[in-house]
Amino acid sequence: MFGNLSPHYRPLTPQSVGDYVRSRSELSAIFQPGDDIQAVEVGDGNLNLVFKVWATADPKRTVVLKQALPYVRLVGDSWPLPPDRARIEAQALEIHARFAPQHTPKVYFYDPDMYLIAMQNLTEHIIMRKGMIQGIKYPHFAEHIGLFMARTLGNTSDLVLDYRAKKLEVARFINPELCKITEDLVFTEPYRYTDRNPFHKEIEPQVLALQADEMLRVEVAAMKEKFMTQAQALLHGDLHTGSIMINQSETIVIDPEFAFYGPMAFDVGAVIANLLLSYASHEVRSADPDKRADFRKYLTDSIIQLWQVFEREFQPIWNQVDPINMPKGYQQHYMLNILQDAAGMAACKMMRRVIGLAGVEDIRGIENVDDRSIAASLALNIAQTLIMNRHFFITIEELVEAATACRPTYPWR
Amino acid sequence: MFGNLSPHYRPLTPQSVGDYVRSRSELSAIFQPGDDIQAVEVGDGNLNLVFKVWATADPKRTVVLKQALPYVRLVGDSWPLPPDRARIEAQALEIHARFAPQHTPKVYFYDPDMYLIAMQNLTEHIIMRKGMIQGIKYPHFAEHIGLFMARTLGNTSDLVLDYRAKKLEVARFINPELCKITEDLVFTEPYRYTDRNPFHKEIEPQVLALQADEMLRVEVAAMKEKFMTQAQALLHGDLHTGSIMINQSETIVIDPEFAFYGPMAFDVGAVIANLLLSYASHEVRSADPDKRADFRKYLTDSIIQLWQVFEREFQPIWNQVDPINMPKGYQQHYMLNILQDAAGMAACKMMRRVIGLAGVEDIRGIENVDDRSIAASLALNIAQTLIMNRHFFITIEELVEAATACRPTYPWR
Repeated sequence: MFGNLSPHYRPLTPQSVGDYVRSRSELSAIFQPGDDIQAVEVGDGNLNLVFKVWATADPKRTVVLKQALPYVRLVGDSWPLPPDRARIEAQALEIHARFAPQHTPKVYFYDPDMYLIAMQNLTEHIIMRKGMIQGIKYPHFAEHIGLFMARTLGNTSDLVLDYRAKKLEVARFINPELCKITEDLVFTEPYRYTDRNPFHKEIEPQVLALQADEMLRVEVAAMKEKFMTQAQALLHGDLHTGSIMINQSETIVIDPEFAFYGPMAFDVGAVIANLLLSYASHEVRSADPDKRADFRKYLTDSIIQLWQVFEREFQPIWNQVDPINMPKGYQQHYMLNILQDAAGMAACKMMRRVIGLAGVEDIRGIENVDDRSIAASLALNIAQTLIMNRHFFITIEELVEAATACRPTYPWR
Repeated sequence: MFGNLSPHYRPLTPQSVGDYVRSRSELSAIFQPGDDIQAVEVGDGNLNLVFKVWATADPKRTVVLKQALPYVRLVGDSWPLPPDRARIEAQALEIHARFAPQHTPKVYFYDPDMYLIAMQNLTEHIIMRKGMIQGIKYPHFAEHIGLFMARTLGNTSDLVLDYRAKKLEVARFINPELCKITEDLVFTEPYRYTDRNPFHKEIEPQVLALQADEMLRVEVAAMKEKFMTQAQALLHGDLHTGSIMINQSETIVIDPEFAFYGPMAFDVGAVIANLLLSYASHEVRSADPDKRADFRKYLTDSIIQLWQVFEREFQPIWNQVDPINMPKGYQQHYMLNILQDAAGMAACKMMRRVIGLAGVEDIRGIENVDDRSIAASLALNIAQTLIMNRHFFITIEELVEAATACRPTYPWR
């Protein structure tokens, strides 16, 4: 794997960034040759270096550089990871820009020698997860993300692409190492004993009960199989609220390095999962019951709305397909499968975020251990309900109703 | 597409074959430099030249050369087809030889300049379809084909292959043009009006009723989607009884040029479809009711047995997989999905062989028009029953029972 590392690859440092950006003609409209350049490394992900870079004389002249490391940063060089994923990310961003430019960061260039993407610095946006933890509502989020998913997923599927183009895209986006992370961390490790499951001790009884539930593990295996075999559309592949930069008017989806051809339901489920994780965390995040109820209503309304928008924005694609070959009843079958599978995928993402590696800040960040355990317990119960009952959901409202009917099991009685 | 044609490519003729085989060192154990060589072109397929080649002095010194043409032979050069499919076939044969050598022809070499495979001349075998039309029983067929499918499908799936190896195999076996033939001829054209549906006029009322059945078209679209998206295992891709060379003791599977990563059920369904097409044809093929019943019992017993063997030979694979990640209940779910989808795939293959291009000799070869219409009508009724009821089949016996309960609609009452 490392035999293919570009000979020109060198990880940038805040010190070396200046020379690098001044050397790139693609940035000549932003930085001039004599500019004094400042940079700070801000990557809070696990796989990459991320630099915010600006001209000292004018901080508005700024870019972000994202450079792939050849290993998983959280674990160190014991877990190698091919930096070619930066090529996948750059190509996925290109496709996102084609179908949903308003929700995609501007990319200045991709440097294949450095496995580096230079892109727009989103100075007006924050990471959505941070806003959600603070209880900030984003009134356009559901509309934006529903559209983003319908356009990027629908237009990369067999419904739109020519038979040959689609199959060549499947090959171009073969992404084994990043898929393997998901296969392990989302679909395998949370459901068994391993020392890579750093859930907090207080919820251990519920985790052990969940891991002992064979029926649940059968359903998880079925979702894993779909993840590994269903080459339906080009997924973002990691569409959680940490991959979304947001403010009150704009929603920008970043970081598609996990992109590959997989089941649409995996992206849809990721968004639903993260809204429901926030929902579970807000069981305890506010002492004021009205405020709590209000924010949670916003979250569940967002889930309903994003699905409605997804369906609405998918409709033009259905209007183009051949009604003999893909009759009306098939459309219903297809969309229903996405909904039901999204419930299953959301469940796996939620369980993983509570039990497994890379837990979610919304819940793991709750300081009071009882509160944290209540939120974690509720999240697990919602997840189990969604995956075990997914075949009964005919509408998004039924999915949300099933989720909101759940209660935490903690404290144990 | 033709820009990539090898500059050394030239279609062989019976006259040029001698020089070609004498020039290949891989055949030096078979042919000597001074040998007088004879060859006859025997391709009755639509896509290739096939030469039987032998030394005049000793006809037992013999090989078969299969050379891809850059167009569909049946249609001519108006339907171009990349000869790279010969590479796919050679690589698939290599994998078949690894997992089921006793059912795979010996390959001497693949010539990438000529898109040509040199392989064993199976002089002791006949094409299975021809034997079945004559009512010849092959007592080991079910055992052989069940094992062949279990070994070749199971061992190329995620159940066995490493995550990376599997995904690289998916890319290596991307086979757009050949898949497109199946997408069109099996899953699209039979269910609509097109002048490429040369069914015989007498069964037109039943064909029109079938094409007008939207519920059926929804199910066909669902099977087509699986064919196009479910990258589960390396399929043979065209596993009909014309791709099987057989005698009373041996079963050899040839012609995997349609190989790609698809749903296992497509191969399983292809075999079932061809046994059921034979079953339908033997409704009228013998005047003697006992002989007829006896052969049809052999056919339905074969279907039951090949599935039992498939399950039995798959078991060692299940015994190797991790019981936490893939619990016992998942195995049942997985095998049941193959069975039910095989019913749906078999149905599409049957309908295509009655209605569409490349009809099946078993039925189209029946001279008496009433007899032919009865067999065709029965085949269509079996197909509709299988695809519409597939979710109810829990066992192979239930599938066979549903098929054998069908009757021809012709003559119209």
